[in-house]
Amino acid sequence: MQPFVTAEDILHAADRIRPFVHRTPILTSRSINHLMEKQLFFKCENFQKVGAFKARGATNTIFSINDNELSKGVATHSSGNHAQALSWAASLKNIPAFIVMPSNSSRVKVEAVRSYGGIITFCEPTLTAREETLFKVMEQTGAIEIHPYNDTRIIAGQATAALELMQDTAGLDLVLSPVGGGGLLSGTALSANYFFHGTDVIGVEPEQANDAYLSFTQKKIIPSVNPDTIADGLRTSLGTITFPIILDHVKEIITVSEASLKTAMRILWERMKILVEPSSAVPLAAILEKKILPGYEKIGIILSGGNVDLDNLPWLKL
Amino acid sequence: MQPFVTAEDILHAADRIRPFVHRTPILTSRSINHLMEKQLFFKCENFQKVGAFKARGATNTIFSINDNELSKGVATHSSGNHAQALSWAASLKNIPAFIVMPSNSSRVKVEAVRSYGGIITFCEPTLTAREETLFKVMEQTGAIEIHPYNDTRIIAGQATAALELMQDTAGLDLVLSPVGGGGLLSGTALSANYFFHGTDVIGVEPEQANDAYLSFTQKKIIPSVNPDTIADGLRTSLGTITFPIILDHVKEIITVSEASLKTAMRILWERMKILVEPSSAVPLAAILEKKILPGYEKIGIILSGGNVDLDNLPWLKL
Repeated sequence: MQPFVTAEDILHAADRIRPFVHRTPILTSRSINHLMEKQLFFKCENFQKVGAFKARGATNTIFSINDNELSKGVATHSSGNHAQALSWAASLKNIPAFIVMPSNSSRVKVEAVRSYGGIITFCEPTLTAREETLFKVMEQTGAIEIHPYNDTRIIAGQATAALELMQDTAGLDLVLSPVGGGGLLSGTALSANYFFHGTDVIGVEPEQANDAYLSFTQKKIIPSVNPDTIADGLRTSLGTITFPIILDHVKEIITVSEASLKTAMRILWERMKILVEPSSAVPLAAILEKKILPGYEKIGIILSGGNVDLDNLPWLKL
Repeated sequence: MQPFVTAEDILHAADRIRPFVHRTPILTSRSINHLMEKQLFFKCENFQKVGAFKARGATNTIFSINDNELSKGVATHSSGNHAQALSWAASLKNIPAFIVMPSNSSRVKVEAVRSYGGIITFCEPTLTAREETLFKVMEQTGAIEIHPYNDTRIIAGQATAALELMQDTAGLDLVLSPVGGGGLLSGTALSANYFFHGTDVIGVEPEQANDAYLSFTQKKIIPSVNPDTIADGLRTSLGTITFPIILDHVKEIITVSEASLKTAMRILWERMKILVEPSSAVPLAAILEKKILPGYEKIGIILSGGNVDLDNLPWLKL
């Protein structure tokens, strides 16, 4: 029997995290609507705590676990937003968060994790080294692992972003979500399936990290191999829990080029005057590439996060 | 007798422009408050139409003039947000906007003016050439001049930004506004003076464009000479209408260094995930430099605009 995320799990997650996270605004832009010939509703998780939707899953998970089990802290290996989110959520409970990060992580990301109180152990930048180092850290500290996406509590937490988006915007035909490990996409698909039957969900990922597309079409998990994309949040492979949910409840997986991803990111910055990270621009890139069929006119887009390295903007390297 | 902006002028301006401009949101950031040890309320005119508060004054002015007088269009010389705002406001009335721009204006600004339908005439990048070219364009077209700031209707329009800020945030001790030509600052000071007696107003400008500071302390207009600041909106001199209002109703003019301006701008981007232009960061730089006295704790800040050249960010040239 597969681990399962129920409608109640998502509603409980929404209640559980409400005191800690923002109900983020949904922005619209006449100028982008005009350009794209669609009615778009952007759920601004870039304005979320720690600058990304990951705050939802981390808070839901930590506040689902009893204090006894949490007493030695939590641990994960991540160079991205989950590391920041877990450090921040752990600080709400006054417990330590042990973060294993590859030695080549950017200064900005290391500083961000530290600013939320995360205790970092560096390792070689390989998956094996990350997993081995995490195992050692957990042995030494007694901390428990919180996986970035392959966890029902994480999925239920991430599902609340789309839940709010669909609650606050009546009559969406479609919600577009980026897909990396699948935590956000599987949660989004479950929220639509449980609560908003008329709303389809499509996942979007970079062509150069098209493992979710391959997995979806071949109906088995195809791991991500040497993904080469600026959307650093979308380089991971699907998980054993996220994949079956995606297969059951997601309409389609669409891939987009790096060039349209950069263009879409710049459109969001220039027209909406907001900072979003490359991963957030992937859904808009799908619309830009005219890959969303007519019939889908009123579309929700989850802007997953706003953590960018301002010294290192993608269009300066085009 | 000086031209005069009354309380009624400001309230009429608010009514007049309401159908066309945004009542922009006021954002707060716990992380910036913590860093600055003040309670800050940011009025986000970067989210305003055309990306700057200038949309307010331009709309108020154009909709104050009778159709007959407007029939040949409007004209101005500007390389900045006023050029975009006037082009946009003119398009609401279906009249032409003739914009004289220096030949060295950035591609981004030229494109922005064109995107709003402005008809551009280029000239040599000197004040004399700009004024002479504007005069010729007005002679040829019959268009009337709309000055960027030295106009009571412009001032009344800009005053509505602070009016909304103080209406929506009870009990502000202080409002900080950047000062260039003084349209925004004089309007802000009048709104506080007429409607919110407990709220002081302070103007902030770059040290390297400190003409308002000099004018304020010497009680006469000292023109801006070769201002060398990245805050491109603040290089102009005060006007004969804006200056006396500032002298009467502004508490103080504070200057800030280019370095703290850049730091403040980056803080706004990174912590709030919003794009603001250099001029908008000047008030926060004053707080960063600890130039705001204790006693001012609950402070409104007008983020004047969000039009930046993303190929040319100031911190990449530090």
